[in-house]
Amino acid sequence: MSQERVWTAALAVIGDEILSGRTQDKNVAQLAIWLNMQGIRLAEVRIVPDVTERIAEAVNALRSSHDYLFTTGGIGPTHDDITVDAIAQAFGVPVVVHPEARAILEDYYRDRPGGLNEARLRMARVPEGAELIQNPSSGAPGVKIGNVYMFAGVPHIAASMMEALTGKLEGGRPVVSVTVGARAPESEVADLLRETEHAHPGVAIGSYPFFRDGMYGANFVVRCEDGELARLTGVELSRRLREAGYEPVEGGI
Amino acid sequence: MSQERVWTAALAVIGDEILSGRTQDKNVAQLAIWLNMQGIRLAEVRIVPDVTERIAEAVNALRSSHDYLFTTGGIGPTHDDITVDAIAQAFGVPVVVHPEARAILEDYYRDRPGGLNEARLRMARVPEGAELIQNPSSGAPGVKIGNVYMFAGVPHIAASMMEALTGKLEGGRPVVSVTVGARAPESEVADLLRETEHAHPGVAIGSYPFFRDGMYGANFVVRCEDGELARLTGVELSRRLREAGYEPVEGGI
Repeated sequence: MSQERVWTAALAVIGDEILSGRTQDKNVAQLAIWLNMQGIRLAEVRIVPDVTERIAEAVNALRSSHDYLFTTGGIGPTHDDITVDAIAQAFGVPVVVHPEARAILEDYYRDRPGGLNEARLRMARVPEGAELIQNPSSGAPGVKIGNVYMFAGVPHIAASMMEALTGKLEGGRPVVSVTVGARAPESEVADLLRETEHAHPGVAIGSYPFFRDGMYGANFVVRCEDGELARLTGVELSRRLREAGYEPVEGGI
Repeated sequence: MSQERVWTAALAVIGDEILSGRTQDKNVAQLAIWLNMQGIRLAEVRIVPDVTERIAEAVNALRSSHDYLFTTGGIGPTHDDITVDAIAQAFGVPVVVHPEARAILEDYYRDRPGGLNEARLRMARVPEGAELIQNPSSGAPGVKIGNVYMFAGVPHIAASMMEALTGKLEGGRPVVSVTVGARAPESEVADLLRETEHAHPGVAIGSYPFFRDGMYGANFVVRCEDGELARLTGVELSRRLREAGYEPVEGGI
């Protein structure tokens, strides 16, 4: 197998509402799946509170150790939206009003009640030198500076910002997953899994047990950047499971 | 308001399945809510891959900066379950078989098909010096060493380990939340929110907008360790919203 460059990304989820348990995060999973399609691997996530120093600290740690850093949350119009300020601080640059963002907001709020008030104008503020990320689903754009991409926290708005960036980020090969399920308690096939993984360098096999309809079972997920190798390993895993007396279910149970 | 000690915790979520987007994490939210009932604030979360060095690194960073560190995932019977080994490495101690854990597993698997095989015995391994965390819902116990608590990744098993620890961890006062909703676009009440927060030191107000049934609105969450102050701030916020022409809905919309 050829050694290709692996592109990695980190995500900083910004928000007291996630850390308090009030809101169930949806962005980790959707960003992970989208990134994989871009050939980029989500390698680390940090969830941090709405505290400028904590955000800046996480941003500086993560942007230097990954190709890309994404953030979700904290780019709205209210006083608790401090992501832009924290990231400006992390980069050591001032916050400025981006003329194009201002124009987008003027246009968006022209016929809406309340118009472009001071709070809404906050959403045109960016760290100096930043570019905008298109937001097809509501007015306020996302923001990009260096390798840092600031998305909205609301999952469908974050998704539309991902959509706007689709195909535009340099990456490598996506990780291909092949799933094989079996009504086997994972602790009875542990050796078989380890051996199969061992026999296929470059492949990782994850084991995800379940208890369903009164029966124990597990889904085994073969992950590899080489799609053909992933497929072959899946075939081999199925063969070994069958030999051990368990009927493999391709695609998972 | 008296200044009380704030107890904080971090969570390290261990698992490629979360970072790949295959599995939606449920443990952040349930741990956050349970911790708050113990008077402990979840202050940071890191999601790390199934790589020993990454886990050890996160564990050492987080256990020294918080009163408690919890981990979820990676304590099962298969080769990809490496949490115990990684945490032993972080503490610089060897991995040993815990006699009580072994006895629990012997008992649990006595009448189950396959018995206590080698894979299942992996779940009796702990970093030297560790104690067990009771697991009322399935055999294998959780593990505690120093201020680090290792929980299972399967949410209902993690929940039962929390249950077993309820009331046993030292904490302070829980953060009390008071929610007031209004059919107000958050960008039209941003000043009002900032001023209300400013007038009540020690209180944080979060703004969580929604678009529902064709109308814009938001829930405003007042958070404070002083329950009475939270309540009073909620009353004051409702008054200001009503003055601004928005009907407040106590408890949120």
